[in-house]
Amino acid sequence: MTKIRDIGEFGLIDKITKKSKDEDVLVGIGDDAAVVKTTRGLQVLTTDCLVEVDHFRKEWFTPNQIGMKAIEINVSDVAAMGAVPRFALISLGLPKDLDVDFVGEMYRGMWKICSKYNIEIIGGNMTHSQQIFISVTLTGNVNNKNLCLRNGAKPGDYIFVSGYLGNGRAGLRLFQENVNGFEIVRKTYLEPKAQLKTALKLAPFVNSMIDISDGLASDIKHICEQSKCGAIIYKDKIPINDKVRQVAKTLDEDEYKYALFGGEDFQLVYTVSKSNLHSVVGFLIGEITKDKKIKLVSNIGEEIIKEKGYDHFSSSLDKVDKSYL
Amino acid sequence: MTKIRDIGEFGLIDKITKKSKDEDVLVGIGDDAAVVKTTRGLQVLTTDCLVEVDHFRKEWFTPNQIGMKAIEINVSDVAAMGAVPRFALISLGLPKDLDVDFVGEMYRGMWKICSKYNIEIIGGNMTHSQQIFISVTLTGNVNNKNLCLRNGAKPGDYIFVSGYLGNGRAGLRLFQENVNGFEIVRKTYLEPKAQLKTALKLAPFVNSMIDISDGLASDIKHICEQSKCGAIIYKDKIPINDKVRQVAKTLDEDEYKYALFGGEDFQLVYTVSKSNLHSVVGFLIGEITKDKKIKLVSNIGEEIIKEKGYDHFSSSLDKVDKSYL
Repeated sequence: MTKIRDIGEFGLIDKITKKSKDEDVLVGIGDDAAVVKTTRGLQVLTTDCLVEVDHFRKEWFTPNQIGMKAIEINVSDVAAMGAVPRFALISLGLPKDLDVDFVGEMYRGMWKICSKYNIEIIGGNMTHSQQIFISVTLTGNVNNKNLCLRNGAKPGDYIFVSGYLGNGRAGLRLFQENVNGFEIVRKTYLEPKAQLKTALKLAPFVNSMIDISDGLASDIKHICEQSKCGAIIYKDKIPINDKVRQVAKTLDEDEYKYALFGGEDFQLVYTVSKSNLHSVVGFLIGEITKDKKIKLVSNIGEEIIKEKGYDHFSSSLDKVDKSYL
Repeated sequence: MTKIRDIGEFGLIDKITKKSKDEDVLVGIGDDAAVVKTTRGLQVLTTDCLVEVDHFRKEWFTPNQIGMKAIEINVSDVAAMGAVPRFALISLGLPKDLDVDFVGEMYRGMWKICSKYNIEIIGGNMTHSQQIFISVTLTGNVNNKNLCLRNGAKPGDYIFVSGYLGNGRAGLRLFQENVNGFEIVRKTYLEPKAQLKTALKLAPFVNSMIDISDGLASDIKHICEQSKCGAIIYKDKIPINDKVRQVAKTLDEDEYKYALFGGEDFQLVYTVSKSNLHSVVGFLIGEITKDKKIKLVSNIGEEIIKEKGYDHFSSSLDKVDKSYL
C-alpha cells in the first residue's frame, strides 16, 4: 500500500482535492489563501499549522516565539494575496503535562503579533494531544484590483523577491548542528516576519505573488504551474546575505540550496510586467518564459530545476536531513 | 508549576482569552462560534479538532467515519448559532507511514458530509505529526434575527433538548469495555449527526441555544454562566433511549451520568420563553431560574450539580476514565 512518505505533501494534496464549483468561491484550494465574494468586497481565508518537533522544538524556541511564528506564517499567506488580515481562530493541541505558563506565554506571543497587525482572535478550540500543535485560521479583506494570485504570471514578466533568502534553512541548520554564534541568523529563523507592508505596496502592480514558505524553487514552480509558463532564475542574482553565506561555509553546505530548497523565509516572490517595473521594489532575480521549464542560469551554464522544496512528509526537524543538499 | 491537567480545559481558556474590542466582532471567544458583521449580514466562524486516540481510534472508526465526524461536529457548532454553514478549511496532521488510501477515505467522508450540507471546502493545510489530527474551520451565514447565543436565557424560560442523550458516552463505553452488540448505539457514536434542520427551525423562537458536546450539565452551565442565571433540570424528563439504558445496565453504570456528563451527543439544548412554547419542538427538561445554581430535581429530592462535563485534559479515550461515574 502507498504510504504518505512515498508521494509527499503535494502528491497527496493533488490526490484528494477537488475544484470548487461554487460561484462565490473565486479561489479555492491551491493558492496561499482561499478567496470568496462578499458584498463588502473579497474575503480571503487561510489556515496553517505548527507541529512540535516538525516545525519547532521547545529547546530552540521560547513559547512566546512559537506563538509569534504561528501568527506570522498565516499573515504571510494573507499578505501574499494582497489582502489585509482581520480575524483569527486558534486550534490548539496540548499535552496534559505542559506548564500552564508555557501556554500563557505562547498566547502572549500570538496576541503580540495579532496586535501588531490589528488582527482580532475571535475563536478557537483546545484539546489534548501528545505533541503541541497550533492550527491558525486567518481571514482577511482585499479589493478586487489588489488581489494577487499565483496564476497571473505572463511570459516576459520579471521575477522579484522582496528580501534576502536562505535564512530559514541556515538558522535551522545552526540549531540542528549545534553551531554557536550567528545570533542574527538564529533570531531571524526563530522570529520570522511576514512582509505585509511590502505586499500591500506591491499588490496593485504585480501579475502574481506568493510567499516563500517551501523554498524559492518550489514557490516559483507553484506560480509557473498555475500560470502555465516557465521561468529563468539568475543564480547570481538570488539575494543571500553574508551571514547566511558564512553559515553555509561553516557547515560545508551550499547557500543557494538553502535559498532554493530550504523554505521558511517568508519573503515574497512576485512577477511584474515591464510597464510596471518603475512601481515596484525588490531584487530582480529572473524572468517568466513561455517554455514550461524552470532553469537556473549562472556564469557556468544552466540547469533545469527538478528538485522540490521543503516537503513535510519527506523531511522533518526530527532528524537532520542532509539528503536534499 | 501548574500543569494543564491541574486547571483543565475551561480553566485554561479563562486564563488566556481576552474580550474583543472590535466593533465588527459581535461575538468573540466563548460561544459555539464567533460572529462578525459583514454588509451581507452576519458571518459565523468556528473551529474544532479531532485528535487520534483522544477523539477516535483507528480500531473503532473507519477513515470515512473520522472524516464525517470532523465535519459534523463543526456543523453542530454553526447550527447552534442558528446559522447555515458555508465554507470549510481543513488542517491535517498526518503520520508519515499512514496509508494514502486512509487519507483518501477520510477526505471522502469529509466531502460526503460537506455535500450533504452544501458546504464548500475552500482551503487547507497538511503537515506531518505523530498522531493524526483534523482541525476544521467552518464559516456560516445568519440573519441577525435568527442568531442564537448562549447569553440570551431568561428566568422563566423552559429548557428543551432536541433528542435523546447519553448515546455518545454509551457508545464510547461499549468500545472501551469491549462489549458486543448494541449496533445502533455503536453506530450513533461512530456517526454523530449535527441537528442543522432542527436548529434552523428553532432559531427564530429560542432565547439561547448550544450544542451538547461536553454533556448536558456542562452545556447548560455554559448558558447559565453567560446568561447570569441558574437552572432546574427535571432528572426524569431527560430523554434517554432504551438501548442506552441497557448499555448502562450491562456495564453497571448510571445512564443519567452518560447524559449529564458524557458529551458528544451533538443534540441541541435551548431555552424558550412561555410565549414561544407553541412554536418549538423537543423534550422539555427544565426551567431557567434567577438563582444561579444548577439543580437536578427528581422524585427522591434535589441536588446541586457541581461536576463538570467532558474535559479533554482530565479524561481521554487513552485510558478508561471511571472516575466521573
